[in-house]
Amino acid sequence: MDEFELIDRIFHRPENLKPWVEVGIGDDGAVLQPSPGKQSVVVMDTLVNGTHFLDSQPADSVGHRALAVNLSDVVAMGASPRWATLSLTIPEFDRGWLDGFARGFFQLAHEHEVALVGGDTTAGPLAASVTVGGEVDPGQVLRRGGAWPGDLIFLSGRIGGAAAALSSTQAYADPVLQNALLYPQPPVALGRALGALAHSAIDLSDGLLADLGHVLKASGNRGAQIQPDQVPLFEASVALLGSSRALELALGGGDDYELCFTAPEERYQEVNAIGGQLGRDIFCIGRVTEEGGCQVEGGPANLKELSRGYQHTWTG
Amino acid sequence: MDEFELIDRIFHRPENLKPWVEVGIGDDGAVLQPSPGKQSVVVMDTLVNGTHFLDSQPADSVGHRALAVNLSDVVAMGASPRWATLSLTIPEFDRGWLDGFARGFFQLAHEHEVALVGGDTTAGPLAASVTVGGEVDPGQVLRRGGAWPGDLIFLSGRIGGAAAALSSTQAYADPVLQNALLYPQPPVALGRALGALAHSAIDLSDGLLADLGHVLKASGNRGAQIQPDQVPLFEASVALLGSSRALELALGGGDDYELCFTAPEERYQEVNAIGGQLGRDIFCIGRVTEEGGCQVEGGPANLKELSRGYQHTWTG
Repeated sequence: MDEFELIDRIFHRPENLKPWVEVGIGDDGAVLQPSPGKQSVVVMDTLVNGTHFLDSQPADSVGHRALAVNLSDVVAMGASPRWATLSLTIPEFDRGWLDGFARGFFQLAHEHEVALVGGDTTAGPLAASVTVGGEVDPGQVLRRGGAWPGDLIFLSGRIGGAAAALSSTQAYADPVLQNALLYPQPPVALGRALGALAHSAIDLSDGLLADLGHVLKASGNRGAQIQPDQVPLFEASVALLGSSRALELALGGGDDYELCFTAPEERYQEVNAIGGQLGRDIFCIGRVTEEGGCQVEGGPANLKELSRGYQHTWTG
Repeated sequence: MDEFELIDRIFHRPENLKPWVEVGIGDDGAVLQPSPGKQSVVVMDTLVNGTHFLDSQPADSVGHRALAVNLSDVVAMGASPRWATLSLTIPEFDRGWLDGFARGFFQLAHEHEVALVGGDTTAGPLAASVTVGGEVDPGQVLRRGGAWPGDLIFLSGRIGGAAAALSSTQAYADPVLQNALLYPQPPVALGRALGALAHSAIDLSDGLLADLGHVLKASGNRGAQIQPDQVPLFEASVALLGSSRALELALGGGDDYELCFTAPEERYQEVNAIGGQLGRDIFCIGRVTEEGGCQVEGGPANLKELSRGYQHTWTG
């Protein structure tokens, strides 16, 4: 057995056999049985070593995040994830790293009933590309462009934790902040439940202001009023970095993988009831306005800079 | 507009709007409308610079091949391709290269009515991951494991051309061989037509003997008798490299992206008729046997080595 066959065995697991998987790993492609009446949702994201993670990051965190960033996109469409494909590029055969990567990937996949159905392993600079497919009722697709003036703006959880952990060694040492960075937990059940309720949704990957900006632009160049004291920060971030830095990191930091969604004011109670059922705090942080960009009353002076969010930089 | 927005514009094209695409590029995910009664097929493959292609390769060839290697897998399942997602990792913003890549990708996508519906662009070492989705009638899925003793073994076209082009500067200079390497054309219409006819199929990426070996193993450890004089070689390969080297490259070279399939002898006329309708030569090269591995009568002495096919090597 060569090393590529060994890698196949690491990823070829019984838990990949879900009822909707007719043919899984091992043929030229996977064959899936769509649920009658549903539409399918497809997302794809790549994590590249040195750009999205560092060599020092635990392998199980890389595996977890490679799937999590994609689940987050599926959730933001109001869909339920069903299957994933993984294309892994590795510079060398390192059994310990591969086992760690697979452990992180499959733990999250198992939690959300996602079957790994295909992909490939190639030799090259470390990177993981993942595609995730999901299903959604045609009437319950969440779009970026559905926000209405007057809508309340909600967050599915606290934000700025990952950015805080990246901002200082001291913050990285805090277990809650480190966990937010290394093992983000996209709100899968919430996304599914919001399809009938929310007007618009986006997942927070680039930073609240940048991502909310995408929603407002797609919704016909709307504006927003954010109440900075309502933005849910991590206690440890405030304690270690101060509340104004913690707020900046929440507004502009990114890597949260929480959901930002808008819903009409009359659905406020229902939104909170869903949060209660799912044991999840949901935070109302402001309101969509007719126009005027994204305003944060009494917030930081460097809003424009923060709203650019996370930017990749070219390596060449 | 920043460079990432420019890249979005290069890939966000009107031809991506197909009837089955409800939501395309530009939201958190794509939403697709499955055809009633069909199953979906998903494949994923990555091309990494230095492993699967070289810096010297034209950008449009990289774009073409990133899609072609995936179409080839969809075809080998008997399915019709419908959509693709693309995750492109680039070390620098090079408008000319990106335009070339997109030209190669979209020319092939257009030819086979494939809509690009999502993906991402990130900074890092040059690589392109592509996922392709297709549809197939449940009864017409082609599997690797369906070959029966007595089945005839067919190829959808000439093989060994890409490997010949890689083997010498002189062969690379031949336009037909170079074209086979840089712009492989997976037999999309043929794959679809074979679903009701063939017992098994695989696409030729690693080399005929290696890939046929996968079929024989998956079909219950069957054997095969290959007639070496029936293996369809490229004239230029024979002329430039000699017939015995040309045969070696056909048996062990890979990168052909033609289809190898098996069908019962009584369907021989139908297989040829389909080839005729599609204007494509189809070649019968041998027969599946009960057991005994893959035999090439009077063929090269280094069969075992050739049957290992293309092997990646670790870079670390």
